[in-house]
Amino acid sequence: MNALPPGAAIGILGGGQLGRMLSVAASRLGYKTCIFEPQGDCPASHVANYHYKAAYEDEAALRAFSSSVGVITYEFENVPATALDLLEAARPIRPGLRPLAVSQDRLTEKTFLQGLGLATAPFRDVPDLPALDAALADIGAPAILKTRRLGYDGKGQVLIEEASQTTDAYAAIGGKDAILEGLVGFEREVSVIAARGLRGEVVCFDPGENIHRGGILRETTVPATLSGAQRTDAALLAGRILNALDYVGVLGVELFVTPQGLIVNEIAPRVHNSGHWTQLGCAVDQFEQHIRAVAGLPLGDGTRHVDVRMENLLGEDMHRVPDLLAESGTQLHLYGKSEARPGRKMGHANRLFRGA
Amino acid sequence: MNALPPGAAIGILGGGQLGRMLSVAASRLGYKTCIFEPQGDCPASHVANYHYKAAYEDEAALRAFSSSVGVITYEFENVPATALDLLEAARPIRPGLRPLAVSQDRLTEKTFLQGLGLATAPFRDVPDLPALDAALADIGAPAILKTRRLGYDGKGQVLIEEASQTTDAYAAIGGKDAILEGLVGFEREVSVIAARGLRGEVVCFDPGENIHRGGILRETTVPATLSGAQRTDAALLAGRILNALDYVGVLGVELFVTPQGLIVNEIAPRVHNSGHWTQLGCAVDQFEQHIRAVAGLPLGDGTRHVDVRMENLLGEDMHRVPDLLAESGTQLHLYGKSEARPGRKMGHANRLFRGA
Repeated sequence: MNALPPGAAIGILGGGQLGRMLSVAASRLGYKTCIFEPQGDCPASHVANYHYKAAYEDEAALRAFSSSVGVITYEFENVPATALDLLEAARPIRPGLRPLAVSQDRLTEKTFLQGLGLATAPFRDVPDLPALDAALADIGAPAILKTRRLGYDGKGQVLIEEASQTTDAYAAIGGKDAILEGLVGFEREVSVIAARGLRGEVVCFDPGENIHRGGILRETTVPATLSGAQRTDAALLAGRILNALDYVGVLGVELFVTPQGLIVNEIAPRVHNSGHWTQLGCAVDQFEQHIRAVAGLPLGDGTRHVDVRMENLLGEDMHRVPDLLAESGTQLHLYGKSEARPGRKMGHANRLFRGA
Repeated sequence: MNALPPGAAIGILGGGQLGRMLSVAASRLGYKTCIFEPQGDCPASHVANYHYKAAYEDEAALRAFSSSVGVITYEFENVPATALDLLEAARPIRPGLRPLAVSQDRLTEKTFLQGLGLATAPFRDVPDLPALDAALADIGAPAILKTRRLGYDGKGQVLIEEASQTTDAYAAIGGKDAILEGLVGFEREVSVIAARGLRGEVVCFDPGENIHRGGILRETTVPATLSGAQRTDAALLAGRILNALDYVGVLGVELFVTPQGLIVNEIAPRVHNSGHWTQLGCAVDQFEQHIRAVAGLPLGDGTRHVDVRMENLLGEDMHRVPDLLAESGTQLHLYGKSEARPGRKMGHANRLFRGA
């Protein structure tokens, strides 16, 4: 239960923009960071003390990495299980392996959430094509077929609008293990970024209201349009998830707001794109909150002192960077990615926001 | 006049906490950084892409450094002139060499400021002991004897309270070239952090009110207690200094507030300790403002959206870190220095501040 001593290193699995911003937050608290990431010149490597550029199957590299750090965390869900098992034998991994196992598999995740008494979209297990037909008959069209594993930013998903489409839909996701989810009629999408410390304390940031396009988050605005009761519900359900997983770190919880209450869409066991606004809106942002948790430090209070709108900048938005640099009250974050492909997250802008 | 392209590297001379926070700001804009600093494991190296660990006399290292970056800046005033001459032949140095030459020498600095029509403390050139006696007779005691070069944080200074102390005082500063400054009776000390872009535009942050103890800055509070006219004066005089130096980057101007108006104490041709509050108070902080300027990007607007009090954490304050981590509305910055000597700047805390 001791805090990681000043000057110690935190290991981060994955070298993308989340690892980059975690590294910066760790430096603010006097910690060093080691990134483990197969890709060279990755965003996190630019600001980390050390970059282990190796495959997740490279046991010698994994051992060297674990022996150079005091604690290990991750910035993405799909870390191979064999790597995790090897690392866990050497150093604490926070959040633990259970949150990863739960969130890596949509079927496990939904089952876990329902087991906590939380509302989710209706869903069915789809191990094969006949099961898909049965599930669609049961849930009704339209519904979304999603691979159980390795989906993100709308990938590995296909909308089924009528029963005749099941064969094509199943082929479109590569005939993989899947679930069928009923569509939820929602008023808005919000998310809660919550943290749990090593001693079990829970802190939530103010919920943000999200706009997705093409399955990719485009904007988050705080404060979200929510009643006081909905805010309380959101914080309580996030706390329930954190406690059930004996979680240490920051968790993102995506929610649908419906007339019947809040429905959990999905959880992400890491800092979350919809929490980037905290860099401008809070004294302690989500990245530092996560570092505090995994390092065994007390959590920050998470209070928001200004209203913020965060906009994601995709590859096709990069021509707007000069205009964004010239805007008043706008804080730009670029991730240092050299190739600006359409749909690729290249940066974000946090804007001071003064109501509608 | 072109902006530094995304992904290019900025060279920083000096690897202390200012270089560290400049590196983080550069990363936010998608730039890489190369640090040139003789000391190993220096604060800036933890978050920079590359650390040239070499002496300022190492011409081969200086050449390699300059060829790996698109533009060069510095985080401290006392860069050796020979190194600067070699580097300037290869790459633009921003701010230029003139601001360094002016601020490296207290006599040159004061003469420059008076030449701009700005008020300073009365001063006399002290090339030798007889000159000191004559200067004291002229200015009157008490007065402060300061070495012309290499002084910072109250070092190289000695207070002279009566004429009998001149011999000891001159010995105490090592018999170096010096100036004698008359004491200014001031109501408060404030500073302006101002920036000038590559196209000559000037932007000022809100003045901060400073408390020094033992010659070291301890606290900066914004807003400072100043009249509207004083705020305007402060911005105008900072602009005059920036324009006269054809400056590109952030400049710190320390001012005494007196019944007769603002008196310039000293200028620092770099980001400044009294501007650290901007990390919590502004969408674009002083470090990013400096990076924007030296990279040829448009300056940020510098508007402050919350009140902030910044407290420096010295070696003897480090036992308070656990309490500071637990405070609401406090943003902690630690510099990753391994040895916490008394008086050494180890970090700072930016606190949301809600009036007196």
